Amino acid sequence: MKAVQVVAYGKDLEMAEVPAPEITGPYDVIVRIGGAGVCRTDIHILEGQWAEKSGVTLPYTIGHENAGWVHAVGSAVTNVREGDKVIVHPLITCGLCRACRAGDDVHCEHNLFPGIDTAGGYAEYLKTSARSVVRIDDSLEPADVAALADAGLTAYHAAAKAARKLRPGDRCVVIGAGGLGHIGVQVLKAITAAEIVVVDRNADAVSLAVAIGADHGVVADDDQVERVRELTGGKGAEAVIDFVGEGGATKDGVGMLRQAGDYHVVGYGENLDVPTIDIISAEINFIGNLVGSYNDLCELMVLAAQGRVRLHTSKYPLDRFQDALDDLGKGRIRGRAILTP
Amino acid sequence: MKAVQVVAYGKDLEMAEVPAPEITGPYDVIVRIGGAGVCRTDIHILEGQWAEKSGVTLPYTIGHENAGWVHAVGSAVTNVREGDKVIVHPLITCGLCRACRAGDDVHCEHNLFPGIDTAGGYAEYLKTSARSVVRIDDSLEPADVAALADAGLTAYHAAAKAARKLRPGDRCVVIGAGGLGHIGVQVLKAITAAEIVVVDRNADAVSLAVAIGADHGVVADDDQVERVRELTGGKGAEAVIDFVGEGGATKDGVGMLRQAGDYHVVGYGENLDVPTIDIISAEINFIGNLVGSYNDLCELMVLAAQGRVRLHTSKYPLDRFQDALDDLGKGRIRGRAILTP
Amino acid sequence: MKAVQVVAYGKDLEMAEVPAPEITGPYDVIVRIGGAGVCRTDIHILEGQWAEKSGVTLPYTIGHENAGWVHAVGSAVTNVREGDKVIVHPLITCGLCRACRAGDDVHCEHNLFPGIDTAGGYAEYLKTSARSVVRIDDSLEPADVAALADAGLTAYHAAAKAARKLRPGDRCVVIGAGGLGHIGVQVLKAITAAEIVVVDRNADAVSLAVAIGADHGVVADDDQVERVRELTGGKGAEAVIDFVGEGGATKDGVGMLRQAGDYHVVGYGENLDVPTIDIISAEINFIGNLVGSYNDLCELMVLAAQGRVRLHTSKYPLDRFQDALDDLGKGRIRGRAILTP
Amino acid sequence: MKAVQVVAYGKDLEMAEVPAPEITGPYDVIVRIGGAGVCRTDIHILEGQWAEKSGVTLPYTIGHENAGWVHAVGSAVTNVREGDKVIVHPLITCGLCRACRAGDDVHCEHNLFPGIDTAGGYAEYLKTSARSVVRIDDSLEPADVAALADAGLTAYHAAAKAARKLRPGDRCVVIGAGGLGHIGVQVLKAITAAEIVVVDRNADAVSLAVAIGADHGVVADDDQVERVRELTGGKGAEAVIDFVGEGGATKDGVGMLRQAGDYHVVGYGENLDVPTIDIISAEINFIGNLVGSYNDLCELMVLAAQGRVRLHTSKYPLDRFQDALDDLGKGRIRGRAILTP
Repeated sequence: MKAVQVVAYGKDLEMAEVPAPEITGPYDVIVRIGGAGVCRTDIHILEGQWAEKSGVTLPYTIGHENAGWVHAVGSAVTNVREGDKVIVHPLITCGLCRACRAGDDVHCEHNLFPGIDTAGGYAEYLKTSARSVVRIDDSLEPADVAALADAGLTAYHAAAKAARKLRPGDRCVVIGAGGLGHIGVQVLKAITAAEIVVVDRNADAVSLAVAIGADHGVVADDDQVERVRELTGGKGAEAVIDFVGEGGATKDGVGMLRQAGDYHVVGYGENLDVPTIDIISAEINFIGNLVGSYNDLCELMVLAAQGRVRLHTSKYPLDRFQDALDDLGKGRIRGRAILTP
Repeated sequence: MKAVQVVAYGKDLEMAEVPAPEITGPYDVIVRIGGAGVCRTDIHILEGQWAEKSGVTLPYTIGHENAGWVHAVGSAVTNVREGDKVIVHPLITCGLCRACRAGDDVHCEHNLFPGIDTAGGYAEYLKTSARSVVRIDDSLEPADVAALADAGLTAYHAAAKAARKLRPGDRCVVIGAGGLGHIGVQVLKAITAAEIVVVDRNADAVSLAVAIGADHGVVADDDQVERVRELTGGKGAEAVIDFVGEGGATKDGVGMLRQAGDYHVVGYGENLDVPTIDIISAEINFIGNLVGSYNDLCELMVLAAQGRVRLHTSKYPLDRFQDALDDLGKGRIRGRAILTP
Repeated sequence: MKAVQVVAYGKDLEMAEVPAPEITGPYDVIVRIGGAGVCRTDIHILEGQWAEKSGVTLPYTIGHENAGWVHAVGSAVTNVREGDKVIVHPLITCGLCRACRAGDDVHCEHNLFPGIDTAGGYAEYLKTSARSVVRIDDSLEPADVAALADAGLTAYHAAAKAARKLRPGDRCVVIGAGGLGHIGVQVLKAITAAEIVVVDRNADAVSLAVAIGADHGVVADDDQVERVRELTGGKGAEAVIDFVGEGGATKDGVGMLRQAGDYHVVGYGENLDVPTIDIISAEINFIGNLVGSYNDLCELMVLAAQGRVRLHTSKYPLDRFQDALDDLGKGRIRGRAILTP
Repeated sequence: MKAVQVVAYGKDLEMAEVPAPEITGPYDVIVRIGGAGVCRTDIHILEGQWAEKSGVTLPYTIGHENAGWVHAVGSAVTNVREGDKVIVHPLITCGLCRACRAGDDVHCEHNLFPGIDTAGGYAEYLKTSARSVVRIDDSLEPADVAALADAGLTAYHAAAKAARKLRPGDRCVVIGAGGLGHIGVQVLKAITAAEIVVVDRNADAVSLAVAIGADHGVVADDDQVERVRELTGGKGAEAVIDFVGEGGATKDGVGMLRQAGDYHVVGYGENLDVPTIDIISAEINFIGNLVGSYNDLCELMVLAAQGRVRLHTSKYPLDRFQDALDDLGKGRIRGRAILTP
């Protein structure tokens, strides 16, 4: 089959002809790819940023945001069958460790991460596990939801965690009005009555966020902390969800947070650097957020099927992978680039 | 009455003769002091570190860890009466703001903090509020429990918050085996079955912590992170309670924390400085901890009455306040120094 | 002032001229009534059903759903002032007991309940406490929101409690599409993405509930349990909120509940009578719900100000109290009858 | 191999020679039985009470409380290997349904229950799944912990659930001082500082419960409700855990419960029959409790290894199964009867 591979760090991806994956274990599921999201992490992988962390052997096939149709299943698979339309949870998990047994898939002690440390979905077929496939509603198409598998799932996870403590009258600041921010706003609208304030440097992105549900938009132009404090009665917001995590976002975000508030770290890049006296005197919390669990992904697919969460996509045939990456790198993608068969 | 006052920053405290407080509001309570804890914060106040933050006008009476007997009550006070033995919650709270109405006294929007921004308890009498006095068991004496009013309450608050998520088999690291750490260990023993690992530079303090209930003691001598990781199966602890917050404690503490773990910030001094990528990839949380609520103090007094939480004290008559401060400053106090009538 | 009083059980209410309430305590607040809800409980009071439970001395003024304008305040009141537009929390609470200190106003150990055990709001003025008045948005009028003070607050409390566990894809059955049910549906829509199934014997009420947001309506005609099970994939709903509690509602409701589901008891009348083997084998829970806390009422007022919760009202001048009661008794009220000045 | 089987309802069990189980699926685990608990449910099975509910085909091997050594494992099993000492979670679960994915094993949509609806552990070997075996500490022996697999796990589950809300100063009533009650008391002592009041008709059982940690014992002799109310300041207990559920226990238990309290239903037999007005006016909750999850069992094994939970056992060789059942039926067993190889 065709597969797009990392052949060396610092070099462009290359299309290769590789053997299609085969069922070898009882819980294996092979998915025919209907859409594979192109993510900024893919660019970072190529740059070598994940080389040491993943320890993957080159060449390998990248792509960690996948959806498609079940092509084959192992002998013990009972939850999907050939032909089912599915989105693929980004991790392959063991199902036996304490984290898995608590529903906390993300901290599985024996996980694999296709597209990061094993073969991913920039290809015709992907091998995953019964524990990683979520059937999607008839009304949804793999290429339309693929980007929800990782970026969307991360945004859902953080927004849903924040929502558990948000009450009517509370405010939630969303830093970053890109793909994750847009999903975060839609999720918050669906499951809370909190007032949502979106902050981004890009005025168009802010406008779009307001159009899809944010109550207030703030263009970050150096006054953003002050603006948010005005919008929150001078006291700051009960929650901040930071989808940026670099370029000074965390300092801003802490300035926007109310006493006893929760700061959700999602985006990353810079250091969180806060005096401990400020943490204890305001009694604020910093909450780490990685991708969501399998059940989180099921819930997000419910919201997608209800039309409550939508993501703009730009589709590229698999052969045009380089165009997709170039467009992403140059900021020419609105929403998410998706590779299709 | 006699009162020990800050007369100028950078100068020694001075004993003064001042008018005794009087009942002026319906919820006022005047407490005859039976014990006033001498706290490192008192030294910081004298050094001027709190001058700007508190905005207090000099001279004023310090002392924020108080217990004694009810001397007089306002017209609307129904929960205590003259002669009752009480410990004094450090804050005077309004009872009407949203935080107060949620039981979150510490974030009262209109609080006063006797000893910090208004007259405190290094004196014969203290004026506080009906909302701040907790009756204590007959078996307890004010001078013995006074230090639980602030230091103890802070340790209880953090330990109880951590305990809510700790299950049998989990590990909790306690950084700092001083007064707060000792109370933290005793509280954890009383309300969890988690394994407790205490870390401190002082071998004697570690031994004492083990004697009162810690399962493991680690003397911090540069290998402490590695030692804790060995004691936690190489994975780190589900919770870290950091009662130090300076001198590199936070860096160490993060190194001792397990994936998805909670880091409780209690002690302060240095900056928490952590790469956001580490926060999100390990999905760890940093939880701020200030002093506890009124109900927290009631619960701590239950543990004290049951003999489950004890604090060593060194008592000084009020007149010898300077000796107490000197001994504290020179590290000659074991447990807590208490001024008595 | 004019006041409508219970003069004897089994007799009609009577209008009387009584002294207007006066400020006697520091936290007293006197409210000029703008709207007083007429509730079925008022009829039950007249019938004597509450005689023993309340122990109130006749004659007394009834009316426990009140809103209006602050007329006078005690010396220690800081949260409202004369002229403020307010809704009145149904209980007067002490603010000092453990329940109050935990934000659980409803279980205050020293509460008073105006309209039940002391003078209520079928009158020109009502005496309550600073702890019981919530300022409302400029856009809201007392007569329009008065019924949210008790009926609405109860529905909010139950719906918000249920919502804390409801996730996208979960189902919530609302039994009873009357006033409380309508508010419950609106609250659930505002703060969850759960699918809402409304069940009532009255087809018009069901239609109205669907019009204001319920996803499915089921007219109770003996097949309601089966219908709900069909709508929930044969498994039952994750939550049932029962606003009826009589006429067989609880038996039906348990039949609609999924394994591990929560049954919220709100309406009352019959016994909950369930084999313990069914409770443990399905591991279901029964959750009692009384009226909400002060903060719950604040949150409900936010939803009202946002237009997310509305209640149809029929207004009657205070003098026509008997007409209002008659219309209520004969089922001629849609929404809630409100007495106005 | 030898196996003790139900051959017909209403008849005695019979020893049979049956084929030993074999590995047929990738996650299969075969356990050589080291101890099989003899439970009152086994007697109920023989009486036919479970015939319809389980739908099992006779003859079949009973025994649902099992521990032993891993004898063989399927091709995909990674968490245990031959020779491991294990306790067996009572359910075989699918690992793929929403409940399993949330850590809620007990509500697995495709579970099997060895000893109830498929072959159990009154035998030399038992077939279960990788998802059902928990390795136990070297210091524990299968025959000593077998009874913790079901009875103990149920008690742990209920006590741990109750403990999550119990604070120092709260009271927890334990109704029933038999095997489950004793484990419940030990668990509560290990993970809470709540005061524990044990109630039972048997004075010896009450004494034993007090000896292992209960703070108060009440012999049920018609005054038990009054006695408990006295012990709880006239207000009732914050939690009641009812391990009896018959003979009037639920009526008593509700009378012992405080406003806003939680009533944990564990034992069963009679109907829970409570006026809805009492449920809502006291705002009490009834919480169903079935057996615990896999992770619950791991936690219980930690407490067992720490010596915090112990259960008295009477051992019988497998051949003497009838003696064990007879002794149980006649009330001659203290603690739990265990069949051993």
